[in-house]
Amino acid sequence: MCVGLDSDIDKIPRHLLEFHDPVFEFNKQIIETTKEYCVAYKINTAFYESRGAKGWESLEKTVHAIPKGIFTIADAKRGDIGNTAGHYARTFFETIPFDAITLSPYMGEDSIRPFLEYDNKWAILLGLTSNTGAMDFEMLQTNKGSKVYEEVIKKCASWGSPDNMMFVTGATRPEMLQEIRTIIPDYFLLVPGIGAQGGSLELTYKFGANKEVGMLVNSSRDIIFSDSSEEFAEAAGKKARQVKDEMMGLMVKI
Amino acid sequence: MCVGLDSDIDKIPRHLLEFHDPVFEFNKQIIETTKEYCVAYKINTAFYESRGAKGWESLEKTVHAIPKGIFTIADAKRGDIGNTAGHYARTFFETIPFDAITLSPYMGEDSIRPFLEYDNKWAILLGLTSNTGAMDFEMLQTNKGSKVYEEVIKKCASWGSPDNMMFVTGATRPEMLQEIRTIIPDYFLLVPGIGAQGGSLELTYKFGANKEVGMLVNSSRDIIFSDSSEEFAEAAGKKARQVKDEMMGLMVKI
Repeated sequence: MCVGLDSDIDKIPRHLLEFHDPVFEFNKQIIETTKEYCVAYKINTAFYESRGAKGWESLEKTVHAIPKGIFTIADAKRGDIGNTAGHYARTFFETIPFDAITLSPYMGEDSIRPFLEYDNKWAILLGLTSNTGAMDFEMLQTNKGSKVYEEVIKKCASWGSPDNMMFVTGATRPEMLQEIRTIIPDYFLLVPGIGAQGGSLELTYKFGANKEVGMLVNSSRDIIFSDSSEEFAEAAGKKARQVKDEMMGLMVKI
Repeated sequence: MCVGLDSDIDKIPRHLLEFHDPVFEFNKQIIETTKEYCVAYKINTAFYESRGAKGWESLEKTVHAIPKGIFTIADAKRGDIGNTAGHYARTFFETIPFDAITLSPYMGEDSIRPFLEYDNKWAILLGLTSNTGAMDFEMLQTNKGSKVYEEVIKKCASWGSPDNMMFVTGATRPEMLQEIRTIIPDYFLLVPGIGAQGGSLELTYKFGANKEVGMLVNSSRDIIFSDSSEEFAEAAGKKARQVKDEMMGLMVKI
């Protein structure tokens, strides 16, 4: 399980606004109560950038507050030409020491390559996303009989390996995970869309898991905003444990 | 002409490192000497993010230092699901008051829509980019006989209008601008790739201009790093004037 820290300052409990850095305080307490139930935290940069430089301070402090041994993902969906991509790699692998970053592959190989040159870091590429807009271009038919997202996954996988690359595949289309697994049986999948976006955990596991499981299933709003009182952190911990137990149950069952 | 403030701290003149915010000082002086020759400034966020929260401070101060009446572009290439896209729109249209932002359209309509809901703001969508990686997915053939980038441009254009949308079309493939103009005769084009990336200004103008010109041609490194001495700003101003004169010459000639 991956916990998504989509820590929108407008949605965190109101009593936290008294703190110097309310978003960091929120994250710190959420991490404290959820860390034993998850293997990864995903931080969506948009929720931090919308507060400008101050938001970036909350972001940096949060990454440093995550215990060693828990995987950290910058959900940043960057994508730009090689020279610029090198600067983004530096941002999220050096300046802020994340383990992984989500990337948009539209601009092709030179936009991805700089991220693969780091040891023990992962590029997580958008394959098939969980939103309605995925129908617009990802699902376009190519003249080879395949869909654009299939070509994207196939070609991107050839640039890296399961040791430095993963793919984002949305839980709102679980039946397609089966096809994706025929293209990339061994790559890890980052699966958003469970919970608030409506994806089914059971179907996602059924169609997406490989023999080593090979999936990071993300839950954000359902866990971190499960309660808005002063006991928000305990409630988040309880919810995280529930989701984890549900996942463990599936892993035993199937 | 658009001047790109790709102000890499490792490339700015060394004497500026004595200032509290060297990158902002560099930008301020460059803006002072180039502002009468350009109609827009484009700020590539990667060069600022790679310095973390401090970089974001330089970015915010720079936008406020650009004179009113000159168009400002956040070259951020963001792209995420609707809820997150709303936060990016707030980031670059409210928190930092840019006039426009570049966006990656891979995730489809809901990733673009929030940016179109602002008055007097522009979404600049990646169409055909200037890098070698453009061959990987943008140039894929669809089953309709078109290429992916053509489908992207066609569909995206249907969501907006020339009053709130533009397209990025790289100068390294000027001959394709002619085809793009058949799809979107009236939209403005943001054209990077002149100069350091090897694109030809003359061919770009020939194939890309419409009857109102309809193009913002960007030059970054060629102008801002034309000199590394204490006279860097004067040199940048001189170079900006040269490029502007070259553009004016073409506009008269053709």
